[in-house]
Amino acid sequence: MPTGPKVYLTRRETFSASHRLHSKSLTDEQNLDIFSKCNNPNGHGHNYILEVTITGSINPQTGMLMNITDLKNIIQNHVLDLVDHKHLDLDVEYFRETNVVSTTENLCVFIWNQLVMNLDKNVHLYEIKLYETEKNIVVYRGE
Amino acid sequence: MPTGPKVYLTRRETFSASHRLHSKSLTDEQNLDIFSKCNNPNGHGHNYILEVTITGSINPQTGMLMNITDLKNIIQNHVLDLVDHKHLDLDVEYFRETNVVSTTENLCVFIWNQLVMNLDKNVHLYEIKLYETEKNIVVYRGE
Amino acid sequence: MPTGPKVYLTRRETFSASHRLHSKSLTDEQNLDIFSKCNNPNGHGHNYILEVTITGSINPQTGMLMNITDLKNIIQNHVLDLVDHKHLDLDVEYFRETNVVSTTENLCVFIWNQLVMNLDKNVHLYEIKLYETEKNIVVYRGE
Amino acid sequence: MPTGPKVYLTRRETFSASHRLHSKSLTDEQNLDIFSKCNNPNGHGHNYILEVTITGSINPQTGMLMNITDLKNIIQNHVLDLVDHKHLDLDVEYFRETNVVSTTENLCVFIWNQLVMNLDKNVHLYEIKLYETEKNIVVYRGE
Amino acid sequence: MPTGPKVYLTRRETFSASHRLHSKSLTDEQNLDIFSKCNNPNGHGHNYILEVTITGSINPQTGMLMNITDLKNIIQNHVLDLVDHKHLDLDVEYFRETNVVSTTENLCVFIWNQLVMNLDKNVHLYEIKLYETEKNIVVYRGE
Amino acid sequence: MPTGPKVYLTRRETFSASHRLHSKSLTDEQNLDIFSKCNNPNGHGHNYILEVTITGSINPQTGMLMNITDLKNIIQNHVLDLVDHKHLDLDVEYFRETNVVSTTENLCVFIWNQLVMNLDKNVHLYEIKLYETEKNIVVYRGE
Repeated sequence: MPTGPKVYLTRRETFSASHRLHSKSLTDEQNLDIFSKCNNPNGHGHNYILEVTITGSINPQTGMLMNITDLKNIIQNHVLDLVDHKHLDLDVEYFRETNVVSTTENLCVFIWNQLVMNLDKNVHLYEIKLYETEKNIVVYRGE
Repeated sequence: MPTGPKVYLTRRETFSASHRLHSKSLTDEQNLDIFSKCNNPNGHGHNYILEVTITGSINPQTGMLMNITDLKNIIQNHVLDLVDHKHLDLDVEYFRETNVVSTTENLCVFIWNQLVMNLDKNVHLYEIKLYETEKNIVVYRGE
Repeated sequence: MPTGPKVYLTRRETFSASHRLHSKSLTDEQNLDIFSKCNNPNGHGHNYILEVTITGSINPQTGMLMNITDLKNIIQNHVLDLVDHKHLDLDVEYFRETNVVSTTENLCVFIWNQLVMNLDKNVHLYEIKLYETEKNIVVYRGE
Repeated sequence: MPTGPKVYLTRRETFSASHRLHSKSLTDEQNLDIFSKCNNPNGHGHNYILEVTITGSINPQTGMLMNITDLKNIIQNHVLDLVDHKHLDLDVEYFRETNVVSTTENLCVFIWNQLVMNLDKNVHLYEIKLYETEKNIVVYRGE
Repeated sequence: MPTGPKVYLTRRETFSASHRLHSKSLTDEQNLDIFSKCNNPNGHGHNYILEVTITGSINPQTGMLMNITDLKNIIQNHVLDLVDHKHLDLDVEYFRETNVVSTTENLCVFIWNQLVMNLDKNVHLYEIKLYETEKNIVVYRGE
Repeated sequence: MPTGPKVYLTRRETFSASHRLHSKSLTDEQNLDIFSKCNNPNGHGHNYILEVTITGSINPQTGMLMNITDLKNIIQNHVLDLVDHKHLDLDVEYFRETNVVSTTENLCVFIWNQLVMNLDKNVHLYEIKLYETEKNIVVYRGE
């Protein structure tokens, strides 16, 4: 099938979650030293901004890379339903059952893994961009 | 002392906190029905945006209503130190020791009360504006 | 019933619509002169940002002025369903069947009228704020 | 002439200017103590965001409070041409020839005075809102 | 001529346009199924945000990659004059005379083609980024 | 030591500075012609937004690429302390003692050079992004 130019399509979503930065492989003193106020025993929270970018060729008939409604639904089902209005360390199995600390870095990798297997064959996941706050932002490209 | 025109001065700050919407005077079923996903047992969190507005006359000599550095420090000491990177229901006495639910409405009133007693005599607290998310915003003016 | 402090609650929504500024009571020359590029015969469009603000007393039991989910649904049913992804002049009866030009000013009044009859008895509609673009904003308070 | 509902129309503009906070009626030590880093001898600068709000009744024929292009031009001629890409203390007569310190508070009053005499008779200047930075905002309403 | 470091310069512009997503090579039923509310017969509209990025070496004498005023004028003449306050499907020849659907993907490619031939020889067009809404964003890099 | 996935971490900061675009190797007429209003003899200023992006592998134990507090401090000490609330041409040696014009392009290169030598060995400086205004943005990646 003929394909059109290669573009990058980004969908922006938000979710609100709480967590505590605390490594099970470190002592309490080490955790407090490394994570400081983010190690508060009762946790804290964020309004995360998530930007999911996929890439591929424009479908000449529809003029779209992928139906953005479908992309929105995939993000809803495989990411937002698991993390929105949740406690990342207590409600999300990926963090609860492992030694993986719920940093923005690791949360990006988790979101990538949740999405990369569930996209259509003709598009590729290009980038997960996650704003923890206005000032702290992490990008993961599957490298 | 001669005074100048009346102006309104706003300082914008942000803080990250977690909470759970749950009223001690309601049953679990009622709480879930009213607060829905915000009633998640393990809580969730937000990056709150706080805008504190004071009003009064311009000091003719300095050209300022109030030194913004002083206002910033008052907000830091009386609000941010208590709520930033905290769990509102567990770490803040105002919510922990009462039946007051940690809604954005009540959080606005709490912040008003923390600030109104600690401002200089020549300025008045005019408004507390609190963004829970990009889409939900509450204002309290001491009425 | 005892009531709490008076607060203002704002819900932010967006919608995308097209329109043409053209008064049926003016000549084509007058319309072009007054509305300039906004009078383009084939129309143009905007991503409107709508901020609906209601006011009233905090419910002491729930800590809320009004359930924001209910407010969101009222805005969806009485405003967004009528204007989102529509042509204001052709798809909205209020503009199609009258001489009312679909300016941001008149659109604010239309939205106010759609909402003011459909709110709960214990809250009052305070303000409709509508961003036509980043630079042009209109507020209507029912005055 | 019949008039319509009362609305508030805001035009947002930006300008880039430099200044130094320094009161001619204070000593150098007092100036440094009060204005701190804003007293840097060589000055500093800002991208100011200006929001001008006017109020009045909707014209039933045009559906507008005032032609926003006219408002834009008035702001350009009476404010932006004087302050954009200028040094407030050296290039603007209002600050250069007086003891008025170029604080955001006084800059608001200056902008109000520049506009209030130049608006059409059927509209009223309601508010000047000036963002010095993302975090410091001043409002003046002619009080 | 000696050249300086390689930089990327972005100019942000906005424009307001209307359109209807409808493929001439699909049936009405297929169009409605694929484009849903974006297929509304009377169309809808957006405030598009356009970011044009060029790349090249800094001119050692001026310290600039390219005079941003020149870049602004090129975007005005070759893009904004054609699409701002227009109906993309009816007013823009590129969409009116072809089977190309006015999706954000295709609009990016159109803008790229309008600009790539009109830039100075010493700079390269790097990227067209187009925000259809706050949540839907497309990038095209000429690939 | 085992390392985790490669991520990109961005820290956003702001600073307020003044400057004048004026090349010592050009005549006054040439300067005015090239830099126009940015050549105003008394200068002007901006609220610059700075985004510093580093890259590297996630530390498996802490889940972080680098402690964001450390990154923040490095930016403060090596960039913000030199440029915030300063006149770039008069207060910053890099511009004062050379023929380098204080354009956003050259300011990006200056900031890159200030940071690249002061980062930890396990992370790499990836990108300096500098917003001069909302509409003019420059990126430098050390190329």
